[in-house]
Amino acid sequence: MAKHLVVSFPWSSDMALKVTNYLLSRGFNVDHVILETKQFPDGESYIRYPVDLSTYESVVIIQRAYPEQDRRLIQTMLAIHAAKDLGVKHAHVVLPYLPYSRQDRRFRDGEPVSLLTILSLINSLGIDSLITVDVHKPEAFTAECGKCVNLEPFALYANYIGSSWGGRPMALLSPDLGSLWRVEKTSKYRGISYSYLEKFRDRVTGEVSMKPKELDVRGKDVVIIDDIIATGGTIMEATKILKSLGAGNVHVIATHCLLLNNADTRILNSGVSSITCTDTVSTNYSVISVVDLIGEALAGRLVP
Amino acid sequence: MAKHLVVSFPWSSDMALKVTNYLLSRGFNVDHVILETKQFPDGESYIRYPVDLSTYESVVIIQRAYPEQDRRLIQTMLAIHAAKDLGVKHAHVVLPYLPYSRQDRRFRDGEPVSLLTILSLINSLGIDSLITVDVHKPEAFTAECGKCVNLEPFALYANYIGSSWGGRPMALLSPDLGSLWRVEKTSKYRGISYSYLEKFRDRVTGEVSMKPKELDVRGKDVVIIDDIIATGGTIMEATKILKSLGAGNVHVIATHCLLLNNADTRILNSGVSSITCTDTVSTNYSVISVVDLIGEALAGRLVP
Repeated sequence: MAKHLVVSFPWSSDMALKVTNYLLSRGFNVDHVILETKQFPDGESYIRYPVDLSTYESVVIIQRAYPEQDRRLIQTMLAIHAAKDLGVKHAHVVLPYLPYSRQDRRFRDGEPVSLLTILSLINSLGIDSLITVDVHKPEAFTAECGKCVNLEPFALYANYIGSSWGGRPMALLSPDLGSLWRVEKTSKYRGISYSYLEKFRDRVTGEVSMKPKELDVRGKDVVIIDDIIATGGTIMEATKILKSLGAGNVHVIATHCLLLNNADTRILNSGVSSITCTDTVSTNYSVISVVDLIGEALAGRLVP
Repeated sequence: MAKHLVVSFPWSSDMALKVTNYLLSRGFNVDHVILETKQFPDGESYIRYPVDLSTYESVVIIQRAYPEQDRRLIQTMLAIHAAKDLGVKHAHVVLPYLPYSRQDRRFRDGEPVSLLTILSLINSLGIDSLITVDVHKPEAFTAECGKCVNLEPFALYANYIGSSWGGRPMALLSPDLGSLWRVEKTSKYRGISYSYLEKFRDRVTGEVSMKPKELDVRGKDVVIIDDIIATGGTIMEATKILKSLGAGNVHVIATHCLLLNNADTRILNSGVSSITCTDTVSTNYSVISVVDLIGEALAGRLVP
């Protein structure tokens, strides 16, 4: 029976341990190890496998790549390269939050498509799969990368919503048209009405206003769903509009909560009743775990 | 006549401008451009070519990769990938200081050979050459990398020594056997005596002592030459020994001066008369320029 090694960094060991347990429960022969890591005085990263890799068929490298994205990407690539170099046949890489995924096209001439640079680099090391969660634009992620796997957390969101809120009629809202598919998919699991914030530009003043497209939020609790909360600006703006239209509670669910500059405090002060995040990034709001999604994706890819 | 573009980051533009002028003086058709750079609020790097790349035969990307090695490596790789993606045929990469070059072998089981990871990543982007200066172990650098070019600054050091110091007899000293070849090569240009610090372990007490192998430094000015000054510990130790053996002035020349934690102040306080560095890293002591070495290496590689 093939033996597999789940490899984590100290800051991803909680997640790696749960993934390991998931795989054990599915009958796989799996160990878990935490890489030795340090930072040299000059700022470079050191990593080391504290176990003999020669008995393992595959490594599964699980890295939380936020914060310090560049450092953690380099660490990840050192870990992949070392494993392959040390003779491990298969390497699966799990970056639940994928850095540089928002630069998924050339917005202006002369720009890199940074997402593709990162994918090209990781792919070049000879990986078997690169697994991430709720990437910004799945089609950009998978288009040029046969080994890239995007996991969708929307069933988890639907369950969480069902078990957390109720009493009042509910609606799901995407902050923009680009993320509408996220609320649409979440809605499919529970049949809750959904919409997105449509933008209008006043032809005379040029001012931009927004309102939920064909959705009456009066008296409804609204759950805003998005992939990333960075500074939280969009969510605060959306909340203001929802409240002015008579919405009840406004809840926020996001996959990757970066929460820059205390965005969480500012969001909660703006009238949002609750923030819910997954554990792709470690936050105080990471109550939805993507571990089972990752475990299941790995179970389909590891040699039994 | 083929047109080439020398590309720099804001912190390497001094060097890039001089390389451009060198290539112009050699008759090449060369422009210089500084990349637009910024850091997103979440910490990721943004770069952009502010010119149309379609008219250029090659780009020469010049990056000072210290400090913030990981960030600057990622920026470099974004710049290479974008240039190739935008249709430039040839990409030459100049990293005068090469990060991760000291992890050039597996010192302990389970470690990555980080140097090779970095070379593999850069190579995977389809470069024509990777040019660096005085890499820690040249044979490790070039062994698995046909496109890797290491430039030696030892003739520059010999000239600098000849024009800066004299009056008293001189000697060159390597802080260890591993760097002996550096002083040996420097010596060849001027015929100055040279040696290295040999280590002795007392068989009874186990204490380690050091002295210059077969070299009497009494009354001589000594120039210590090394590739990297990090914390400066080795140099301070060497200076103490040299002074105790009656040496005159002790000078230090190093290619890459990282000068961690005010190492320069501590070195000068330890009795060293002067520190001299190259411009591979920007310091207050960077008076020897490697620009002509780089220019010459490029002149031999660019299509006329």
